Amino acid sequence: MINEEDATGRILYEDADHKFIWLGTDSKNRKSEIQTMQYLIIDHNRGILLDPGGVHIFSRVVASVSRYISIDNIDTIFYSHQDPDVSSGIALWLGVTKAKVYISALWIRFLPHFGIVDSSRVIPIEDKGSRLTLESGAVLDFIPAHFMHSPGQFNLYDTRSRILFSGDIGAAVFNNGDDVLFVEDFRKHIPLIEGFHKRYMASNVIVKKWCERVRKINPDIIAPQHGAIYKGAAVHEFLDWLSQLKCGIDLID
Amino acid sequence: MINEEDATGRILYEDADHKFIWLGTDSKNRKSEIQTMQYLIIDHNRGILLDPGGVHIFSRVVASVSRYISIDNIDTIFYSHQDPDVSSGIALWLGVTKAKVYISALWIRFLPHFGIVDSSRVIPIEDKGSRLTLESGAVLDFIPAHFMHSPGQFNLYDTRSRILFSGDIGAAVFNNGDDVLFVEDFRKHIPLIEGFHKRYMASNVIVKKWCERVRKINPDIIAPQHGAIYKGAAVHEFLDWLSQLKCGIDLID
Repeated sequence: MINEEDATGRILYEDADHKFIWLGTDSKNRKSEIQTMQYLIIDHNRGILLDPGGVHIFSRVVASVSRYISIDNIDTIFYSHQDPDVSSGIALWLGVTKAKVYISALWIRFLPHFGIVDSSRVIPIEDKGSRLTLESGAVLDFIPAHFMHSPGQFNLYDTRSRILFSGDIGAAVFNNGDDVLFVEDFRKHIPLIEGFHKRYMASNVIVKKWCERVRKINPDIIAPQHGAIYKGAAVHEFLDWLSQLKCGIDLID
Repeated sequence: MINEEDATGRILYEDADHKFIWLGTDSKNRKSEIQTMQYLIIDHNRGILLDPGGVHIFSRVVASVSRYISIDNIDTIFYSHQDPDVSSGIALWLGVTKAKVYISALWIRFLPHFGIVDSSRVIPIEDKGSRLTLESGAVLDFIPAHFMHSPGQFNLYDTRSRILFSGDIGAAVFNNGDDVLFVEDFRKHIPLIEGFHKRYMASNVIVKKWCERVRKINPDIIAPQHGAIYKGAAVHEFLDWLSQLKCGIDLID
């Protein structure tokens, strides 16, 4: 269960110039839709939104963001991939901010189908990834995570906070009301992540490569778009578990 | 170039009880968004819509459908997968019809993020597929096409018309204005389909399995959601080409 005090968000990292914030939840009002998590990076009083989500949760996320920064100061929106729960609010977000949007080049011609989207504000990330340097000098690294599940998916690694935003990777599916913010006991968390990763991730070949890359980055925190956040030992336990997982095409028969 | 007379659609199959209709195009008004194709099956004066598409093209598709059948007679909407160009108009379509929606069980909890979606009208298709028998006795067969690209994708095979609606499979990416309705010369079509299939389809293991299954079905027509329609020799040439293709994870390095 998420604490009452956490329902409006929590700062995961903070220094004089830079914050990484989880934007809270509305688990009480959730019905049939899958739970999602949104994050906000604030750097020198400019905002970067990570997977701010679909039409359905737009007003809640606007309210959450506004507790930390003016919507006018959102310069950048990062979308890990093209799914409805990630990016279907794009037309609304382009309307209320002047932000540029970063997403895999694979989805550039698909986004306008969400509604009125000014393509000149959408910047394609090429397959190998790229980097964005912020005012404070902090670097955001767009790390390829293709076929996990989306054929064009990126993670975002914030080198200052050492937090890896991992999109669908690490996602847990909670029963309604059972949400927790951090993974406390990884073994107990496995039943919440196993079904999703086995069915949506494309194959062990690809998840193993991703785990190898992430071990080199050695993040303090892995923050997914669904489920709960991994820190400390849970980061390593998750990578050990995922790198061995048979999934997707491996199990298709 | 699509003929002026075809811009409003074309009947691909017709008998006394049953029609399979391509719903036309708006290539003149297309800008940055990828071209999409919508289809309508009419059986005993009841309508089934296949991938009616996103918010962006909603009004055009309503107008196209209305040339053939009253919107009130649309009982069923089939979505091949969860992408914006396929299904982001779901809240609008649920508003103007009383239709039930069929989509892979993988996306049931994601669809509400598109907006106001009454989940009681959305019917999950389980991984192995299922069938729907229409008033005339015609059968629609939901054929698994997972990881091509979506981890939860179905094709729809209309056994009466012998037309396979293949979702993203067979998709071509045209330069603006170069659209054709049917693939006339498969060798000349390859450059329009090669990049998409190599990058979005997950691996040769999976595309080969799909080709084997489709050869057994032996459809007269393969009708994808993007690009041009395959009939006659082009069906077999496409299957021969695709079954050999290295793609996705095979090429990830």
